[in-house]
Formats: sequence, C-alpha cells, structure tokens
Amino acid sequence: MQNTVQQLDDNDPLAHKRNAFVLPENMIYLDGNSLGALTRRSSERVQEVVRQQWGQDLIGGWNLHDWINLPQLTGEKIAPLLGAKSGQVIVCDSISVNLFKLLTTALSMQPGRVRVLSEQGNFPTDLYMVQGVQTLLGEQRCELRSVASEQLEQEFTEDVAVLLLTHVNFRSGHIHDMQRLTRLAHEKGILVIWDLAHSAGAVPLTLDLCKVDFAVGCGYKYLNGGPGAPAFIYAAEKHHSAVQQPLSGWMGHANPFAFTEDYQPALGIKQFLTGTPSILALAALDAALDVFADVDMHQLRDKSITMTEVFLALKDQHAELSELQLISPMDSQCRGSQLSFSHPQAYAICQALITKGVVPDFRAPDIIRFGFAPLYLSFANIQQAIEVLCSIMQEQSFLQSRFQQKRAVT
Amino acid sequence: MQNTVQQLDDNDPLAHKRNAFVLPENMIYLDGNSLGALTRRSSERVQEVVRQQWGQDLIGGWNLHDWINLPQLTGEKIAPLLGAKSGQVIVCDSISVNLFKLLTTALSMQPGRVRVLSEQGNFPTDLYMVQGVQTLLGEQRCELRSVASEQLEQEFTEDVAVLLLTHVNFRSGHIHDMQRLTRLAHEKGILVIWDLAHSAGAVPLTLDLCKVDFAVGCGYKYLNGGPGAPAFIYAAEKHHSAVQQPLSGWMGHANPFAFTEDYQPALGIKQFLTGTPSILALAALDAALDVFADVDMHQLRDKSITMTEVFLALKDQHAELSELQLISPMDSQCRGSQLSFSHPQAYAICQALITKGVVPDFRAPDIIRFGFAPLYLSFANIQQAIEVLCSIMQEQSFLQSRFQQKRAVT
Repeated sequence: MQNTVQQLDDNDPLAHKRNAFVLPENMIYLDGNSLGALTRRSSERVQEVVRQQWGQDLIGGWNLHDWINLPQLTGEKIAPLLGAKSGQVIVCDSISVNLFKLLTTALSMQPGRVRVLSEQGNFPTDLYMVQGVQTLLGEQRCELRSVASEQLEQEFTEDVAVLLLTHVNFRSGHIHDMQRLTRLAHEKGILVIWDLAHSAGAVPLTLDLCKVDFAVGCGYKYLNGGPGAPAFIYAAEKHHSAVQQPLSGWMGHANPFAFTEDYQPALGIKQFLTGTPSILALAALDAALDVFADVDMHQLRDKSITMTEVFLALKDQHAELSELQLISPMDSQCRGSQLSFSHPQAYAICQALITKGVVPDFRAPDIIRFGFAPLYLSFANIQQAIEVLCSIMQEQSFLQSRFQQKRAVT
Repeated sequence: MQNTVQQLDDNDPLAHKRNAFVLPENMIYLDGNSLGALTRRSSERVQEVVRQQWGQDLIGGWNLHDWINLPQLTGEKIAPLLGAKSGQVIVCDSISVNLFKLLTTALSMQPGRVRVLSEQGNFPTDLYMVQGVQTLLGEQRCELRSVASEQLEQEFTEDVAVLLLTHVNFRSGHIHDMQRLTRLAHEKGILVIWDLAHSAGAVPLTLDLCKVDFAVGCGYKYLNGGPGAPAFIYAAEKHHSAVQQPLSGWMGHANPFAFTEDYQPALGIKQFLTGTPSILALAALDAALDVFADVDMHQLRDKSITMTEVFLALKDQHAELSELQLISPMDSQCRGSQLSFSHPQAYAICQALITKGVVPDFRAPDIIRFGFAPLYLSFANIQQAIEVLCSIMQEQSFLQSRFQQKRAVT
C-alpha cells in the first residue's frame, strides 16, 4: 500500500494546489468540511483590503475597488462550481437568513399550498428556519413536515409547496439524487430548494441541468472563505421576475443611493440582497475562489472518491479499527467528500486524534467525521491519519472502555 | 481664529486618540459617519485572526479563540456606549436583517395592534424592512404609517404597535428626544425601536434610563468596524423571556451543537442570533471598540459639538460660502456629529472637495454632509477643510453655475 499511496500522490493532477494554501505544520486536517483552510490569496487579499482599501481609500473603496458589486462578482465565481449560468448566484448573509428569504419567497409562489417537506436528520438550522417561518406565518400558511429519507418520495403530493433538502447529509455524507428528486417534485408542482453546504466545492453540481428552483450554500467549508464566511443564494433565472423576498433591505433595491422611500427590488439576482455586506468577509471568500478557477470539478471528485476508498482500504487492514462502524454509504458514488463512523467512544477518540495532530470532527452523539478536501490533502496524509488512528485505538483507555461496554451489555 | 484653533487642539483631551488610527496622509476625512477609519488594533487583529487563528488553528479557533462567544463579547463592549447594562447587546447580521427580527418580534407582542409608525425621511432601509414585513404578513398584521417629523407625537395612539425611529437623522443630523418620545409612546402602550446608526459612538446614549424596548445600530460608522461591519441589537432584559424572533437559526439555539431537530431559543440576548457570523468581520469591530474603552462619551460629545461650531463660525467668515444652506439644526444640542448643507451644485462641490483631499459625502438630491469623528479629527483639520471649500467655491465653474441659476429664476 505504501507504494500505491506514493504512486497516487505522484500521479495526482491536483497535488500542486496544496501550494495555494497555508497549512499548519504537523497537522493532518480532515475537517475542511467544517472550516476550509486558508489560501495564500485570501491572506494577501484581506491584508490589502484592510490596509490599503479601507485604511487608505476609506469611503472611496466602494467605487474604487468595486466593493458595491462584490456580492455579485463573488457569486459569479461560484456559479461554475454549481453548474449555473451567469446572473443566478449571489453571496450574502448566512445560510439561515438566506433560507428564510427563499422559503418565504417559494411559499408565496404556491397559493393554496402550505407544506414544506424536509427530511429528519437534515442539518438542524434548515429545520429551525422552517419552524421560524411557521411560527411567524401560522400553520395555515406554512407547515413543516419532516420524514425519514426513504419515505420522501411517497410524500411528494400536490399538497406540498416546497421541498427543502440538503444535497449531502452533514452526518453521513449521503448524497441525494438531485436530478431525480427535483424532477419528481416538479411533476407534483413542488418548488425545490437545495442546501449545498457540503456539496459546493466538493461535488460537481448541475443546478441548471436539474432545473433546480433555488439553492443556498456555504462559503466556509469546501470553498475556504474563512470562519463564518458569507453564504450564497442560487435562484433560477426563470423565477427572477416572479419573486419578491421579504428581507427587502436597501442593498436589494433597484437604486439604493436614490434613497427613495418605497422599496423597488433590483432586477435579477441582486434582489436577494438585504443589508450592507462585510467587505472583509466577502473579500476573503472571493480570493479563495480563485483557487478553483482552473480546477476540473470531475478531476476533483475523482480524487475525493479515491481518497475515501484508500482510507477504507487501509482501515480494513487493521483489526483494531473494526469497531469504527461506517455510517456513510459504502458506494462511493452515493457519498460526498467525507467518511463518518460511529463509535461509543467517538468523542474521546476525536480528542485523542486532535492531540496527535489529526483533526476530524465529532458530531453528537457518537460520530467521528473525516472530511477530505482534495485541494490540499495528499494520499500520504490519509495513510498517516490511519496510522495515528491505529495507535490511538490500541491504547489502554479505549480497550478498557470497550471491555466495560461489553460487560454492561451482558 | 488661527490662535483659537491651535488652542483647541492643544487643549483637546482626545487628541492622543488619533494615534490609534491609521489615516491616509494628505486627506481630511469628514466621512466617518459613512465609513469609520481603520484603527491599528483592527489592522493587527484581522491579521492575527487570518494568519494565526484561521490559518494555523483552523476549526480549533472556535474554542481556542472563543469565536463562538464573539457576538456577545463584542456586544458587551458596545453596551456602555449605549447606556445599557450587561447582557442586552449582541453583534450580528446587518441593521436591515436585525430590524426584521425586532419588527416581527415587537408586532407579535402587541396582539390587536398592527401599525408601525415611522417618519418620512427615515433612512430608507428602515422603511423598506417594514414594507417587507407588511408584504409578508399582510396589512391585517402590519401596516406602515410614516408621517412628517412634526406630526409624530399626535400619531401616538393605542392603534400603534411599534414606533420605529432613527435617533440621528442621516440627512440632517437632527436628534430626536429619545427619552421624551419613548415615554410618550409607552403611555399609549407602543413598543419603541430606535435605529442608532448615526448615534452609537458619536452621542452619549442612555437606553436603559430611557426604558427603550429595542434598538439596532451600525458597526461601520462611528464604531470604526470596517466596511459592512456587522450590526448590533439591543433588547431590554425585561423582554427576553417574552419574545421569539422568527429568524431562528442554529446560532440562536439554546444548544446549537446538540443538533436537535426542534428549535429552542437560547436564554437572553443570544436568542437574537441566526446563522454563523463572520469572524473576520466581528474581530475587526471588536478590536476597533477597544479604542473607546477609556473614552468619556460626554468629553467626546463636547469635542464633536465644538468642532461643528468651529466649522460654522469659520464658514460665516467667508462670503463665498454663504450659498451653502445649513439644513442641520442650528442648535448644536439638537444635532448629531455632522453638518449638512444644501446647494444646487452639491454633487460637483463634493467631487471637487474629494479631488483636493477633503472627503465629505453627497446625499441625493442636493446635500453635502460633513461628518466629524472626534477620535481622529483635529480642529486644524476643520480649518483646512474650510480653506479648501473656499478655494473651490471661488472657482469659475461654481460662480458660473450660480449665475445661470439666477438667470433661470429671473
């Protein structure tokens, strides 16, 4: 396997991308699906924005450095990663706030329908935002129904206004079939909102081809935009003239600096803006996206899949890792760029890994989640991570806890 | 006057604060009410957050550097500037988004009342957000009424749910009497939301004393948090257990990392959070606020008033400035830290000033607005600005345009 790993790194067409990142020494970072790594471009750009653009040009920065169009310009860099043609993606606010805009917008487009269908085990903020809309509008205008994944399709009925799903599940990494589900939903007149938090930058996407209505996604995971980076909205062009989102702040106005008292939404995707965006936050994300400019997303996906397969193959060679139960799909085509395992001692194992320089993350109650960011991880990193994991699992504490658990069960 | 200006600078107890800022050479910046200047602390802090905290500590930053509590910690630094005791201020999102939270919250606390009373000439985004709520909830639940300033008090009736006012008007700088208006509104059972965009960091505030219900404010003007810095929310403690705001994202959950499917709001001010905040944006604001730590806001206000008075006194000495009509209140107690003038050639005058290194701003259709940020401006700056303004007003182009206008009138 040593040879294979070496060969994989030698033949990795994305290996040079690692140089675009500033990575800590002595750390194998398998948590790019929580917070992406820092790019050199972001580091330089933020310094330029702070010291020169803000510090020296002050208010002039809005025009001189086109801050005013940054939400759209950054959106245009994300669009190709989503399979979206120009004019349909904009960067602003958080996923949660953007979901509120899209949920209320989609509901208003579906007179006579009130149900928002989602999935148990969806990322909680998605469900919380529907609950917020439901409490605000009342159940006669919004009613959340979340069902188990396998029940979803049978719930596609003409009562449903909106289908809200996360494309790649944050716990398991399971990928929904976007094209199929969108088509089936449309057959019943349902509008579809996809949450792409764990997809954008990790999995090739074809929103236009799938005729997706709306989507949101995250700037701080695989797009490497920095902690709490702004999120994005995708809205299919065909809906632009039919919608009016209720967070109608001045940045979404047709002419913000006319200071008129009546709200007139901008044409196109700009109408989804609300307040003044953080330019520091936007600039960090905008710069990080340049790393994707020449990346073939299918090549990136191939590397991602191979990484997860190598991880599983190496794991299978070690008996001491057998108690880590894979909860991600076995079929690599059906999972995103992560592998999740359950283990009764998941939290302690995560902490031990972090202490030894391998950083996964823990998701309550018992999941260890390893994320594979193909732009800055090598296959050698995977092998090293497995070795550290083995050394930890061999330690007395985990053996003992396993022993105690067995006793408790008996 | 030369001597007086020199004396004022010599005796200015805040003069040393200028060193806390990085200011461009050869620029007199009179637009701190649009975008505050860069502090050295923000510059250093952002670099530290990017290079060390994000770059080297990655996901660990959320705990190691207490990113997770930054919205509250930064709010605690703003609270003393508002006259608010601890636990009532939090930094998040934009003013527009925060107004949506507060408007819907306040309306839900006022069963049987639907009217939101505001003022013509309020900052447009405030009115736009009410319009958004009205469109979403329908006029049977929210009805915007905006009246002229002098009519406000007679509109305080028991039909009104919410009074939404901006404390310092963005155009004229006129200050509302917060204590009086809040008391009169409360006498009719009206909840009061103040927009402090042009107040916080410029004018001493006493929200607790005035028994204000809710407020929002801006991070990027007098608080110097950087372009598009996050905004803040003030919510009086007495309301914390009675409210539930509808933008119920995971950061406002009682236990975000339990990933439960039902939204349970956090206790206290944290319930006003929604999605994941930008740490870069928060850190820049948090660091900038340190400059206020030892500032006596009454001393700052004294300097602000003296600056505007010096500006007006110098202006009166120059006949060529007589066509600039003051639209700010003559009484310095009744205006914020700005002076606004109308002039038919306002836009051209602004552009000419900027070219000569004096930066005010223009507000449509005919207003030149000079902002006075007492922490980084000297009285000599005021004198220099007047000299440049004189030189511009003496130029042929403006004389000619005045001549043409007179002819047109005759």
